[in-house]
Amino acid sequence: MSRLHPGGLVVEPKLREECGVMGVKGHFEASNLVYLGLHALQHRGQEGAGIVSTDGEQMRSHRGLGLVGDIFGPTQLTPLTGDSAIGHVRYSTSGERSALRNVQPFVVRYGGGQVSIAHNGNLVNAARLRRELEQRGSIFGTSSDTEVILHLLATSQQGTFINRLVDALLQVEGAYSLILQTETVMVAVRDPHGFRPLVMGRVGDAVVFASETTALDLIGGTYEREVQPGEMIIVENGTQVLSLSPFPRRERKACVFEHIYFARPNSVVFGSPVYDSRFNFGQALHRTAPADVDLVIPVPDSGTPAALGFAFASGLPFKQGLIRSHYVGRTFIEPSQQIRDFGVKLKLSPVRSAIEGKRLVVVDDSIVRGTTSRKIVRLLREAGAKEVHLRISSPPIRASCFYGVDTPTREELIAHRLTPEETCAFVGADSLGYLSLEAMHNELKGKASTWCDACFSGEYAVPPENDAERPQLDLFGGASPDED
Amino acid sequence: MSRLHPGGLVVEPKLREECGVMGVKGHFEASNLVYLGLHALQHRGQEGAGIVSTDGEQMRSHRGLGLVGDIFGPTQLTPLTGDSAIGHVRYSTSGERSALRNVQPFVVRYGGGQVSIAHNGNLVNAARLRRELEQRGSIFGTSSDTEVILHLLATSQQGTFINRLVDALLQVEGAYSLILQTETVMVAVRDPHGFRPLVMGRVGDAVVFASETTALDLIGGTYEREVQPGEMIIVENGTQVLSLSPFPRRERKACVFEHIYFARPNSVVFGSPVYDSRFNFGQALHRTAPADVDLVIPVPDSGTPAALGFAFASGLPFKQGLIRSHYVGRTFIEPSQQIRDFGVKLKLSPVRSAIEGKRLVVVDDSIVRGTTSRKIVRLLREAGAKEVHLRISSPPIRASCFYGVDTPTREELIAHRLTPEETCAFVGADSLGYLSLEAMHNELKGKASTWCDACFSGEYAVPPENDAERPQLDLFGGASPDED
Amino acid sequence: MSRLHPGGLVVEPKLREECGVMGVKGHFEASNLVYLGLHALQHRGQEGAGIVSTDGEQMRSHRGLGLVGDIFGPTQLTPLTGDSAIGHVRYSTSGERSALRNVQPFVVRYGGGQVSIAHNGNLVNAARLRRELEQRGSIFGTSSDTEVILHLLATSQQGTFINRLVDALLQVEGAYSLILQTETVMVAVRDPHGFRPLVMGRVGDAVVFASETTALDLIGGTYEREVQPGEMIIVENGTQVLSLSPFPRRERKACVFEHIYFARPNSVVFGSPVYDSRFNFGQALHRTAPADVDLVIPVPDSGTPAALGFAFASGLPFKQGLIRSHYVGRTFIEPSQQIRDFGVKLKLSPVRSAIEGKRLVVVDDSIVRGTTSRKIVRLLREAGAKEVHLRISSPPIRASCFYGVDTPTREELIAHRLTPEETCAFVGADSLGYLSLEAMHNELKGKASTWCDACFSGEYAVPPENDAERPQLDLFGGASPDED
Amino acid sequence: MSRLHPGGLVVEPKLREECGVMGVKGHFEASNLVYLGLHALQHRGQEGAGIVSTDGEQMRSHRGLGLVGDIFGPTQLTPLTGDSAIGHVRYSTSGERSALRNVQPFVVRYGGGQVSIAHNGNLVNAARLRRELEQRGSIFGTSSDTEVILHLLATSQQGTFINRLVDALLQVEGAYSLILQTETVMVAVRDPHGFRPLVMGRVGDAVVFASETTALDLIGGTYEREVQPGEMIIVENGTQVLSLSPFPRRERKACVFEHIYFARPNSVVFGSPVYDSRFNFGQALHRTAPADVDLVIPVPDSGTPAALGFAFASGLPFKQGLIRSHYVGRTFIEPSQQIRDFGVKLKLSPVRSAIEGKRLVVVDDSIVRGTTSRKIVRLLREAGAKEVHLRISSPPIRASCFYGVDTPTREELIAHRLTPEETCAFVGADSLGYLSLEAMHNELKGKASTWCDACFSGEYAVPPENDAERPQLDLFGGASPDED
Repeated sequence: MSRLHPGGLVVEPKLREECGVMGVKGHFEASNLVYLGLHALQHRGQEGAGIVSTDGEQMRSHRGLGLVGDIFGPTQLTPLTGDSAIGHVRYSTSGERSALRNVQPFVVRYGGGQVSIAHNGNLVNAARLRRELEQRGSIFGTSSDTEVILHLLATSQQGTFINRLVDALLQVEGAYSLILQTETVMVAVRDPHGFRPLVMGRVGDAVVFASETTALDLIGGTYEREVQPGEMIIVENGTQVLSLSPFPRRERKACVFEHIYFARPNSVVFGSPVYDSRFNFGQALHRTAPADVDLVIPVPDSGTPAALGFAFASGLPFKQGLIRSHYVGRTFIEPSQQIRDFGVKLKLSPVRSAIEGKRLVVVDDSIVRGTTSRKIVRLLREAGAKEVHLRISSPPIRASCFYGVDTPTREELIAHRLTPEETCAFVGADSLGYLSLEAMHNELKGKASTWCDACFSGEYAVPPENDAERPQLDLFGGASPDED
Repeated sequence: MSRLHPGGLVVEPKLREECGVMGVKGHFEASNLVYLGLHALQHRGQEGAGIVSTDGEQMRSHRGLGLVGDIFGPTQLTPLTGDSAIGHVRYSTSGERSALRNVQPFVVRYGGGQVSIAHNGNLVNAARLRRELEQRGSIFGTSSDTEVILHLLATSQQGTFINRLVDALLQVEGAYSLILQTETVMVAVRDPHGFRPLVMGRVGDAVVFASETTALDLIGGTYEREVQPGEMIIVENGTQVLSLSPFPRRERKACVFEHIYFARPNSVVFGSPVYDSRFNFGQALHRTAPADVDLVIPVPDSGTPAALGFAFASGLPFKQGLIRSHYVGRTFIEPSQQIRDFGVKLKLSPVRSAIEGKRLVVVDDSIVRGTTSRKIVRLLREAGAKEVHLRISSPPIRASCFYGVDTPTREELIAHRLTPEETCAFVGADSLGYLSLEAMHNELKGKASTWCDACFSGEYAVPPENDAERPQLDLFGGASPDED
Repeated sequence: MSRLHPGGLVVEPKLREECGVMGVKGHFEASNLVYLGLHALQHRGQEGAGIVSTDGEQMRSHRGLGLVGDIFGPTQLTPLTGDSAIGHVRYSTSGERSALRNVQPFVVRYGGGQVSIAHNGNLVNAARLRRELEQRGSIFGTSSDTEVILHLLATSQQGTFINRLVDALLQVEGAYSLILQTETVMVAVRDPHGFRPLVMGRVGDAVVFASETTALDLIGGTYEREVQPGEMIIVENGTQVLSLSPFPRRERKACVFEHIYFARPNSVVFGSPVYDSRFNFGQALHRTAPADVDLVIPVPDSGTPAALGFAFASGLPFKQGLIRSHYVGRTFIEPSQQIRDFGVKLKLSPVRSAIEGKRLVVVDDSIVRGTTSRKIVRLLREAGAKEVHLRISSPPIRASCFYGVDTPTREELIAHRLTPEETCAFVGADSLGYLSLEAMHNELKGKASTWCDACFSGEYAVPPENDAERPQLDLFGGASPDED
Repeated sequence: MSRLHPGGLVVEPKLREECGVMGVKGHFEASNLVYLGLHALQHRGQEGAGIVSTDGEQMRSHRGLGLVGDIFGPTQLTPLTGDSAIGHVRYSTSGERSALRNVQPFVVRYGGGQVSIAHNGNLVNAARLRRELEQRGSIFGTSSDTEVILHLLATSQQGTFINRLVDALLQVEGAYSLILQTETVMVAVRDPHGFRPLVMGRVGDAVVFASETTALDLIGGTYEREVQPGEMIIVENGTQVLSLSPFPRRERKACVFEHIYFARPNSVVFGSPVYDSRFNFGQALHRTAPADVDLVIPVPDSGTPAALGFAFASGLPFKQGLIRSHYVGRTFIEPSQQIRDFGVKLKLSPVRSAIEGKRLVVVDDSIVRGTTSRKIVRLLREAGAKEVHLRISSPPIRASCFYGVDTPTREELIAHRLTPEETCAFVGADSLGYLSLEAMHNELKGKASTWCDACFSGEYAVPPENDAERPQLDLFGGASPDED
């Protein structure tokens, strides 16, 4: 007479970054350093991870589903010898997309030898390219757009690996921050718009590439610079570096959501510190949407920097009104007896003594569907909050992303369906304030045109092709989660 | 040619709470609610957990090593039927103490039937009682002092279960917050000094006991009151409650470290909110040890409330200067190439943009050995901090605990060996300030005499017997970790 | 729309041996040798296994549920240091008895120090002794009768370990082949009737005890002799051996079923080779119950030696008419579409070309419930057998065992309910023949009085006490299988 | 101070069958029946297994490393919906070849849709075809020759799936028994020589293909016929069957080793019963190489049918002189103290009472390297055998197989290096006799030309290309065993 059932995700996920990539070339512990770097990039993908190393002759790989720490131990790392290694963490999604065969880096053999690839981003013309490649005789073993790049490389009429790669990338449209590796060469390359981040640094002489600087910091490396939009950096003969710019120049379009939510606060992304952006968003949010309250509290952890900025700008006291639990995994046994807002309670516990009788500003970084916000407002009221004013340190999310972020369909986005006033009513707050698009761009200290804000503005630098509507469509629909 | 080796704990642990306990009587989903409550109490023990339920006739149990979420799933919970259940989480320690046989609740059969027990605390005369019991023919299957209570109960000449239990507890000295369960009765009892916390509440009619109120909150229960020091609460005939005070009256000695570090900030412990205590310690710390700086930052997560209090009292800005990673497990593969302060880096990442060029106050809740503090100071300096002033929101820890907290030996405590000035030099800070004992007691708004502050003052309300020097000495020395 | 469900045991089990024991004293690799020996004894118990070693000061143990090879690897064995070790394999049973806490060897501390124990057999007065011990204050942590021996030892008024042990064993009635170990001494002892086997041998100087000689053979040891009924052998000061006979002399009552089914055919049990007994049973079976057929086939593997004996005596050809699969585990996913006699088919495949059109004698070692025999007869007929004459190389099983064998209740035994003629009709054979009790004893070349044949004759050398009706009654009724 | 290390294979493996295949079309429980069938085919491959099902629109798959029963449970099988499914078991090999990515069935998408494939056999021109395909732009994700077939299919200029498949297979040389599946069609096809077996049967209306009839028997199916050499059977529109013969006619070359060792004794392979062949080989062996001895014993289990045939023909008594253990897995912890012939002892225990003082004929099915035979001879002599005459029920193995059997290099084959007399001396037997090639063919009741006996005769029907020397060369050399 069991009434138990495993619950789903305990709180509605935010938008999800689709990946993190890492590469080390010219270090005798290359795969160990990649392993450590993937730990620091774990927030960019919790579904799966892999590392491929090469000693100049063989490639060796290990990939798995789960967290980096669960997939890799000495048994898995020891065989990954050689002074060159690349790695990948993959985002966490629901069942049908979750198959080991889609975990990167991919390793294949083609006419020019072996190549492995790790990709952060999403191509908008992958479905069409895939169809064309299939018509010409290519076979696809995964549902990933990354495999398209490998087939374009393999079928290119160019002679060298680099020329083939350029030839391949000239055909794809969309977002890619790539690290590739042959037996002898490592290449890091970013699409001409530079949607997704990619940095370069050093550990001693060894060259390191990573999605974020936090990976460099962890391994004691030094940050050198971004891989520039449209730049291809080639490392060969040990640690010798060559930079090419083989693509037509395009307007820079850095993903603004990296600064709002994705990147770790201690990272430097697109050349500027993430923590500062968030703190500044909070200050600007106060200017945009002040509130007459007693106290500022964040929705931890992602809302904390902006909440501190809001408190600093307003002079209001700041307290932790919600304590986040870090022991709770992603699924959970729910009791049969319905406990209201159980999932959120498991993650966030209100501190009654701090908030009872208080008028609160609650700062969160974004609202996606609105259902979690509603539960949080209710939780705070039940714990005695007198007023709950919700402040969001980004503009309303109104459109899907096609450049490597896992967004719900447009119809699920609350800001697509409801006005801010209706949203406020839905979540049950006393007031709701967003950061305006203009204020956001002001704080990013760049021209709006240098950022991709498509999820807010709906303006796409690279228009998605028709059948790109659902990024990473699973062509094998329904492969079981732990398959392959 | 592997140079990898699994690292130990990545950062030196603070003092460790030894356990959390939970009981539900009179609810058709008793074991499910205990399971949820143990999740909320997970911070009190991560080594192992167990639940024992009874339907009035049978007792059924499941215990395991690891986190609650890893030990229990529907397969384990479904058989734990009945409307009465008790549970336990156990602290995390190094190898030799970690054996399944020491995981509670214990279940045994004695002359009066079956009984299960969950214990938070530590007895100071267990070793002597154990020797005496062994001489009289008792056999011990664990190295736990809790087993002593069961043998005293079993060998008591008293008639009823309650009388036997009182008889047993009159012989033990030290700290105990216990929940016991027979086929028909649940008993919660606290030692006369009331060292460790224990609260009572309700879910509907069902009676709930738990170490902290956060467990009640999670399951939608209501807090009624503390189980009083020296009080024995008996629940029988469903949910009928009876209170006894069978022990000689003693001075209340509530563990002050619960308010400093152990309890979750959203809990109400010994009748007062933990978050407030910590925030107030921070304010008092500013009064005691102010500093001329630019910025206040916490050592997250435990130092955050006090740091906020310090910032509030001082008017100084507060920022997150260190970001804590929550993906890192307890052990880790270290690279062979030594990365300086690797363990701390894995857990804590400095936010260079927030701290560079700044004079900082860094607030932590306590210092045990001092080595982690030293690494943190170095990390901050490397990230550009101009000055680092360390502030500790509790007095120097100078003495071991014998009442249920896992402390290093006195010799390992930095405050036992070094003066504050020497400690400051050791950790490399520009200045070091502690909260004074008096200030601490002031903030706790009670007479000093109502709190156990032995770890700071060295004054023990119940003197440890000679061979109590190492609490929970492992008599089977070296049983393998995953044994039994 | 899953219709799958895990099946139970794929074929009805025969009677089950309840345990195997092993001990090595005086060898630097004691625990490794015990580990190997337990492999050779795996057929005596597949539910769980454990090893306890001692280096003269500490005892170290590891126990687990499952097969020896799954429980132990280098991680588990390496910590089991010392030159003395004992081990145990436990029989496989259905759910409720299967709990880790009941897996032996047990290790406890009592007034005289530490002691570990491994037991093969069953006590008939354990329930009464347990009640008396509980009344005097002993607490029981397991549902095993073996724990009674430890409590008797602990509460004995005798001075030395040996005297306490003798004192304890003088109080118990029933079957026991025991190996015990303190920090300094190993003791092997058999009950005065000698129900269950126990042998002694050497590896170099080291002393080895084991349930069967096959364990000695595997580790390259030499067989010395049986531990005699009522004998207590003490090994101390390294490998010095002392023999005591502290118990009143009783009539030898060796378990006849060891020779019929339990022991491995290559073992020497109670001083005589098992393979020979079975071959001879088959020859005698032909004399008792000949058949006019074309071919003899065995039910593999246990029926093979007797079938060979039958064929030899009769001059009839012998073939493998049924092939046994060794890849099938104990549970299995059954298809929803009912496949007739699926479980037996999974284990046994008929060889149509060998049996089609033939009149067969099919030899099995015993019949318990009769349902498997019925399926086998049907399988053979479907594969074209013209006649199926079932021959059983033991007498009809009519009574339960109380001395360490897991028998169904008397009511479930087909020979208790039905006459041989009715049994033959039930299983659908053309004829059915058993070995007579007399013929069996003749072949064992001993007086009937030296064997325990209670399962056939219903004559019990040691009458079971009333509440011994179900051996190893689970006092904690319903502890979950993987508990503790 | 651990001296333990995990041993390798405990006994030297015989030649290994490389795979088993299974397909069910037109049954609502298709994947369950394939799952059962793979159990029955488990002896053909223990390294990995997979199943792919389709419901006419989606393909769903699960693959894993290990045994069928470990890889599949309800969680894995339930999602594999649809009335069409194919499955594969893969042979067990040493480390570097063992990667999940090489586990079949493969599923890919190409220009014509999705296709999945399961292959038993080995192509001799795969390396050349692979190079050519790579030059034309194909990328390879596995090191399997089976992937070549998929690329040839994908790059074919033909229009329909069937025409593409024929086009592809016209280009490959070597051995293949294939089952392929698209969303709507299932195809079974055998190479023109028919090296490897493949049968067709029915369960109700549903069509079943399997490597051996034992899989049909288990699921209650009926055997219809072999898929003929060079035949392509197409199942579409539910269970409608169409037979094509699109390939040039070749001489039948059925693998003789299926009858000697690979197939289960109860299977009917290439139209004749395997058990009979083996029994007859034993009879013929007696005629070829009689011996003046007291007793015939087999090397179990594979030598048993031939040993029975030898005994029958000679009139000599037959006994089980060696007992095989079925609990031992493939790897094992070895003791540091060297126990002579440990691995063989673990698997095979001599029955001293049966063989002591006896002159023995020991019958085994084949000798590969000779080292195991030497250990067995020594084991028997140590157990008291007076004479040991080794008889092998097949000719000396002198050449490698290129058609799907995993053979050592020619240099490792004892019969390639030594004469029978020298071999006899090496293994230490009193005499050694093989079945002659002629006698073997006589017993198979067919012309020698209809069988492939290349491993004995060195005559290859399809000459291996130069770089086919090591079948299934691992192109990714050193991928870690549990990768992908």
